[in-house]
Amino acid sequence: MEKQIRVIEVKRSIFEHNDLDADRLRGELKEKNIFLLNLMSSPGSGKTTTLLALAKALNGRVKLGVMEADIDSAVDAQKMAEAGIRTIQIHTGGMCHLDADMTRQGLYEFGMDGAEVIVLENVGNLVCPAEFDTGAVKNMTILSVPEGDDKPLKYPLMYETCDLLVINKIDVLPYFDFDVKRASDYARQRNPDIDILTVSAKTGEGIDALADWIVAEAKAWMKQG
Amino acid sequence: MEKQIRVIEVKRSIFEHNDLDADRLRGELKEKNIFLLNLMSSPGSGKTTTLLALAKALNGRVKLGVMEADIDSAVDAQKMAEAGIRTIQIHTGGMCHLDADMTRQGLYEFGMDGAEVIVLENVGNLVCPAEFDTGAVKNMTILSVPEGDDKPLKYPLMYETCDLLVINKIDVLPYFDFDVKRASDYARQRNPDIDILTVSAKTGEGIDALADWIVAEAKAWMKQG
Repeated sequence: MEKQIRVIEVKRSIFEHNDLDADRLRGELKEKNIFLLNLMSSPGSGKTTTLLALAKALNGRVKLGVMEADIDSAVDAQKMAEAGIRTIQIHTGGMCHLDADMTRQGLYEFGMDGAEVIVLENVGNLVCPAEFDTGAVKNMTILSVPEGDDKPLKYPLMYETCDLLVINKIDVLPYFDFDVKRASDYARQRNPDIDILTVSAKTGEGIDALADWIVAEAKAWMKQG
Repeated sequence: MEKQIRVIEVKRSIFEHNDLDADRLRGELKEKNIFLLNLMSSPGSGKTTTLLALAKALNGRVKLGVMEADIDSAVDAQKMAEAGIRTIQIHTGGMCHLDADMTRQGLYEFGMDGAEVIVLENVGNLVCPAEFDTGAVKNMTILSVPEGDDKPLKYPLMYETCDLLVINKIDVLPYFDFDVKRASDYARQRNPDIDILTVSAKTGEGIDALADWIVAEAKAWMKQG
């Protein structure tokens, strides 16, 4: 029997809408035939490690670029550059997310000529990044096994916003109380259309399927009228 | 040799300061002899599991209450209530943090009479909660082993703001590339005064030391003139 919990709704702030600007940016990307993928997750779920594995899997298939967004430091961009991936670091000056205008600034600095697929690694955060449309063509989130399978219940907007859920760190499933089916069910409760893939960026398991997903989505976008 | 990384500073938003209000709330807490501890971390680092273990260790030592803040759901408060812990759920209406006024609303609904130590489990997020002083007496953050030891480099303000860093999930250290010393060094680079404890909320290792820390800090606060 569930205990009765008192729930208090505190004040709701109005989030500035940048939806129009995001649509405009998608138009610009369409003109240049660029597929922008917005990658979101908690800190430490393995965004950077997944991208490093992905870059190998995509090598020779599409021209990949990565924009790394962080509050501070260039740790992630450093790793990308060392792996030979075309990259820039975006500092958000304390902000916990990127909006469409910040993404556009990043894209113009990055230089869009010659790129086909650009991944925006958003700030590690399950809340704010989901609220601001970056102008990306598709949104993807990573949920790692150690975080627990209840995250879709607690961060619903993230799952509603995303086209793809990647469950990462499946190599450590034996050491955690994480049920892939339960996590998938919770995610689909929030978003029945979400695609779900399981990977281990560390061992490489499932990374080819992720690469295939990205190539297929990028091709579909480029064909779109 | 480090590769040269291009770093772009995008616009900085002005965060509303609620420092005065937070100081006022600390004054109210002092009058009522209540120690409020603000607990922050990434999603899935083990805040709730740590609190459940902590409640057992603090049983008979201090009167504990827990305020659970979430965007949505009452999953965590449910677990607290089932364990017999006095609790309420605060919904932030989409906001990624609590400010002092929201915390005060929560405290008044919770009812402060009879409580000695109240833990505010903040929204799972390493960015925004660090920017808003809740009015808590002390701030604590959890970093779990699977998240990686580089988090203090990427979320500096969190570590600058906190009095205590708890490194959690040390039972899975053998399965991850996480160096406790490196994580501690990075945290101390950000905040030389930060206390650091290692625990496994799952096995109970280190939880007594954490309980001692809280009792000592609460006593020091209550003695303060």
